[in-house]
Amino acid sequence: MEKITSNQNSKVKAWRKMQSKKGRLKAGEYIIEGWHIVGEAISHHQKLLGVMVVDEAFLTKLAVDSTRVPTYLITPEIAKHISATETPQGVFAILRTADYHNTIPKNLAGSWLLLDNIQDPGNIGTMVRTADAAGVSGIVFGNGSADIYNPKVVRAMQGSQFHLKLFSGNILDWLSKLKAQSIPTYGTELNDQAVSYQEVKPTSSFGLVMGNEGNGVAPEILAAVDQNLYIPMKGEAESLNVAVASGILIFHLVQ
Amino acid sequence: MEKITSNQNSKVKAWRKMQSKKGRLKAGEYIIEGWHIVGEAISHHQKLLGVMVVDEAFLTKLAVDSTRVPTYLITPEIAKHISATETPQGVFAILRTADYHNTIPKNLAGSWLLLDNIQDPGNIGTMVRTADAAGVSGIVFGNGSADIYNPKVVRAMQGSQFHLKLFSGNILDWLSKLKAQSIPTYGTELNDQAVSYQEVKPTSSFGLVMGNEGNGVAPEILAAVDQNLYIPMKGEAESLNVAVASGILIFHLVQ
Repeated sequence: MEKITSNQNSKVKAWRKMQSKKGRLKAGEYIIEGWHIVGEAISHHQKLLGVMVVDEAFLTKLAVDSTRVPTYLITPEIAKHISATETPQGVFAILRTADYHNTIPKNLAGSWLLLDNIQDPGNIGTMVRTADAAGVSGIVFGNGSADIYNPKVVRAMQGSQFHLKLFSGNILDWLSKLKAQSIPTYGTELNDQAVSYQEVKPTSSFGLVMGNEGNGVAPEILAAVDQNLYIPMKGEAESLNVAVASGILIFHLVQ
Repeated sequence: MEKITSNQNSKVKAWRKMQSKKGRLKAGEYIIEGWHIVGEAISHHQKLLGVMVVDEAFLTKLAVDSTRVPTYLITPEIAKHISATETPQGVFAILRTADYHNTIPKNLAGSWLLLDNIQDPGNIGTMVRTADAAGVSGIVFGNGSADIYNPKVVRAMQGSQFHLKLFSGNILDWLSKLKAQSIPTYGTELNDQAVSYQEVKPTSSFGLVMGNEGNGVAPEILAAVDQNLYIPMKGEAESLNVAVASGILIFHLVQ
């Protein structure tokens, strides 16, 4: 295990750069941190390009095979320097960003959640976890949505990226491919010109678009889907949190 | 309108104390801030005990009748001093804490969401908004849950406290009163010894208990309800966010 004690070390500099999208794109790698997520990566047999810990005993606890994975003992100061949190747990790993994430798969049978310009990393993470729990096949991060490998998104996803596939893409392109395969596509609207989601039958294949926290789904996307859904509200609140709305719709739609 | 320019002013000191539960209990008052929530309080005819603004024109915009409500022009420094946010909007109001909130109503016909030890103010706020949207009658903040008038909770509720009733109380007491009126009571459990929520029919009156983010509903409460519900998960995520789970259950249960 290599010991690193300086923030000026070239590896430390490289890890820190992964906080930015530019840095991640250039490296083709991203950083994960915390016991839960690093543990999930290991239990899902992800290829680790490096593991960094503040305490040698952590490697044993993680069951990392240090003959196959480069491992680094770092100081608490370095941990703080490369962490996206105020109080890092002192456990990090480097993963390759997935190469599939820009290509639309040929066979789209399955359920897809498409994020149109969702901005809050906490909302995105909760939506990914919810879709994961519901057994959704994959998630498409559309234009304007936060980056898949943004550290705050990664933390909020809690390792769900190892369970389902995450894509970056143009939602209109995805919708036209879904429609070409006769898979129903749904947008979401707050007004009652849309159809109540309760009128839609559960199905094994669908594409559901959820929209921006403030502005909803973009008009050109609302126009491109087969049907727009709304959640009837009996009370006085003007809207639902986008992650809660996703949960209600996805758990209704999945068969 | 009274002009206040010093953080040492006795009113400013009193407003600042409302950040703490002790301060709110002593005053019997709480502070709200931001255009949306103050506007909601006004449009729902809440009795305002004071309105504080950083710009005189804000009063006109809010349509506050300054002959009936004490109004104060404060400096941006004071706004920052009494605010719970980093970038206050410069609009505040003081409200009386509700006196009903410790008493269980006699007639419990209606739908009730009971929070057992929910700690994250963001989760609580989202749950209140969701319950509000679904037309739930009231919410009970059980032991260990964040304080109803905690500024972070108030901000996250977005004014829903003006639409439905919020109570502080002992959940076991509430459950026994609900049961005495033959109103079905539900807990939530993650294991499949519980009943799938889909097997429960929607109804106009019920009590639903949601539990702590990490530990779930307390065992003595699980034992006291008529039935424990779970949300079947097909995917790999281990759990749902508590606010998302509430949304799925409430929107299924309300008739």
